Amino acid sequence: MSIITIERKVLEKNDEIAAQNRALLARHGIFAFNLVSSPGSGKTSLLERTFDHFGGAVKAAVIEGDVQTDLDAQRVAKFNVPTVQIVTAGGCHLEANLVRDALKNLDLSSVKLLVIENVGNLVCPSNYDLGETMKVVVASTTEGDDKPLKYPAMFRNASVMIVNKIDLLPYINCNIRELRANALRINPALRIFETSCATGAGIPEWCAWIREQL
Amino acid sequence: MSIITIERKVLEKNDEIAAQNRALLARHGIFAFNLVSSPGSGKTSLLERTFDHFGGAVKAAVIEGDVQTDLDAQRVAKFNVPTVQIVTAGGCHLEANLVRDALKNLDLSSVKLLVIENVGNLVCPSNYDLGETMKVVVASTTEGDDKPLKYPAMFRNASVMIVNKIDLLPYINCNIRELRANALRINPALRIFETSCATGAGIPEWCAWIREQL
Repeated sequence: MSIITIERKVLEKNDEIAAQNRALLARHGIFAFNLVSSPGSGKTSLLERTFDHFGGAVKAAVIEGDVQTDLDAQRVAKFNVPTVQIVTAGGCHLEANLVRDALKNLDLSSVKLLVIENVGNLVCPSNYDLGETMKVVVASTTEGDDKPLKYPAMFRNASVMIVNKIDLLPYINCNIRELRANALRINPALRIFETSCATGAGIPEWCAWIREQL
Repeated sequence: MSIITIERKVLEKNDEIAAQNRALLARHGIFAFNLVSSPGSGKTSLLERTFDHFGGAVKAAVIEGDVQTDLDAQRVAKFNVPTVQIVTAGGCHLEANLVRDALKNLDLSSVKLLVIENVGNLVCPSNYDLGETMKVVVASTTEGDDKPLKYPAMFRNASVMIVNKIDLLPYINCNIRELRANALRINPALRIFETSCATGAGIPEWCAWIREQL
């Protein structure tokens, strides 16, 4: 019982800091999404494609969350996007206080779009509000069409689902209609995009949607 | 600080129960592996292929761990393998006490091989000993070749890595030599198998290895 109480206190404290982050981002008119998925679903590839599409026309910044290494930050920084790396050193999700500290390293007055790339984990990050405008969940076709049913919290808490790696559909056993239906069963309000970071399919639609939010 | 202390207490308690599980399994001469991976890497498909290959010749049992649903247990049970489902209801990993309770529902005297399929999560399950003989980590080629570097704890704590979905290598950007090298950099003692649950490639070698362990 004591553990549950402490967990709740941790979450309450987290939510308090998340609210402060949210107010700070709102003051600067920044649209911020918390990008979540399993490991290897293509979060970083999606960011590469997105920044390549924008070609510097959107003032963006990235906070990268990783258990170890700054490999993802290196990939994103190539697009001349200010990037702050958080290494959780074993931690399975980002928390609001880590994002708060990362925000201090960005010049928010020159940012319109902030992407917080979370640790690759389809379970734990769903519980932690970071102060983002919304969560965007990436689901790779290669993970199968049952994932929204098996990991419902993440799909319930997200506002957008990106079905990535659609170029692989001919080679795998994944019914994309079933995947969409399963996701909408969990969260009927989910906005869905279908993309391939290998071919670029769906990237213009996704980027047009981001522009609408700015 | 208090949280760290409590975390440690939780882990100490977990390790105590895990040791009891391990002793119980040893008494029955059971080889048990804790099957871990990201969501959708193919853990359940690997079990289907494995039990299909054995065709009932190996006395097996399965404990299925899932955040929600018994979809995986239904798939495994089709092979007439005694299966106990643990639904963690949001929990991001199995713990030793859950496995202890599940073991009470199995007739251990008629089991030689026990598979504990963990929650799909490449971070949290690495910290929790369940009493298994060893951890087996599944890495899908579609997740990319950098995963051992980015999620090192799991690859360090595993004894075996199964590189799954090798049939998709012609269509994706994954260098399997690099994946193997990255994994061995983290854990030089790792035993590696390459499999495809779509084509059956590598399954005989993997099953032969299991037989050697029994």
